Amino acid sequence: MAEIWILRLGHRPERDKRITTHVALTARTFGAKGIIVSTKDEVLEDSVMDVVHRFGGDFTIRTGVSWHSFLKEFKAKGGRIAHLTMYGMPVDDVAKNVSLDKDLLIVVGAEKVPAELYQIADFNISVGNQPHSEVAALAILLDRLSQGSWVEKEFEGGTIKVLPCARGKNVINPAEREDMP
Amino acid sequence: MAEIWILRLGHRPERDKRITTHVALTARTFGAKGIIVSTKDEVLEDSVMDVVHRFGGDFTIRTGVSWHSFLKEFKAKGGRIAHLTMYGMPVDDVAKNVSLDKDLLIVVGAEKVPAELYQIADFNISVGNQPHSEVAALAILLDRLSQGSWVEKEFEGGTIKVLPCARGKNVINPAEREDMP
Repeated sequence: MAEIWILRLGHRPERDKRITTHVALTARTFGAKGIIVSTKDEVLEDSVMDVVHRFGGDFTIRTGVSWHSFLKEFKAKGGRIAHLTMYGMPVDDVAKNVSLDKDLLIVVGAEKVPAELYQIADFNISVGNQPHSEVAALAILLDRLSQGSWVEKEFEGGTIKVLPCARGKNVINPAEREDMP
Repeated sequence: MAEIWILRLGHRPERDKRITTHVALTARTFGAKGIIVSTKDEVLEDSVMDVVHRFGGDFTIRTGVSWHSFLKEFKAKGGRIAHLTMYGMPVDDVAKNVSLDKDLLIVVGAEKVPAELYQIADFNISVGNQPHSEVAALAILLDRLSQGSWVEKEFEGGTIKVLPCARGKNVINPAEREDMP
């Protein structure tokens, strides 16, 4: 299957640190390969990679990337662009038409995005036409694109694994577990 | 149908302002009746109510509420408690067992929550057992509980309405629209 990538536009390290971290970790949980952030932010890189090292998988982050060239290159390589916006077409109508035979880049803006983005995008997708959260919108879009199969994703490696539990916490160290009888 | 409410624990106005705003607006979009925040925060109240006034609906917010008494009262009135946690049982297994014949309170913590919450809750629910975002987790839980029907929710009143659009923005003022032929 093709890969899904996230492009985060307009990130301001001071103001958006936590929201962009949520965007990145949501992308990882729901099966994206990695996130590209237009603004340089090493603190953000470190906090995302810390989760990857502890919880496994091969999610990647790059910050300080010229978004315009990145979009152009992605398209030139045959990838498609989806832009998440409260002004777009309903996710349930659009997601079924987004075939994942080619790589997909999901653009997630913080605040206002350049007007040309609505034209560059192959799909402008809304998760409800109400103002809410790019984190929530991204989760729902990735859920629909994967038809809920993100749940089965395995994160290889890492030092911590959480197992489902009805009450309290069940956390194991996968390496230790292999030694158990 | 019964009502769904959100209880936000451990909100710190300075650090969590934006994330809790996202939690509240996500709750509103995905059909919850309102949010209760344990810490007093009038700035948060204002920014959520500003969206309600502009985009309609009857979503409410109360801040500075003793969470312990609120939980107790909610249970005493026959309501059920669901606690969103990365340590809980898989949302797709649990959500189908949460019948909405009674009101439901979804508890969403910021950082660590008191250990007793895992015992008070009728359901400890995880949206993946990976660390990501309470905003994403709440969206997915509300999506599953409503079986995707949040999309059809109408928000009455308000001064702005966004209509789906393939490119660009289509925003109307509902009051003006009624005057149109």
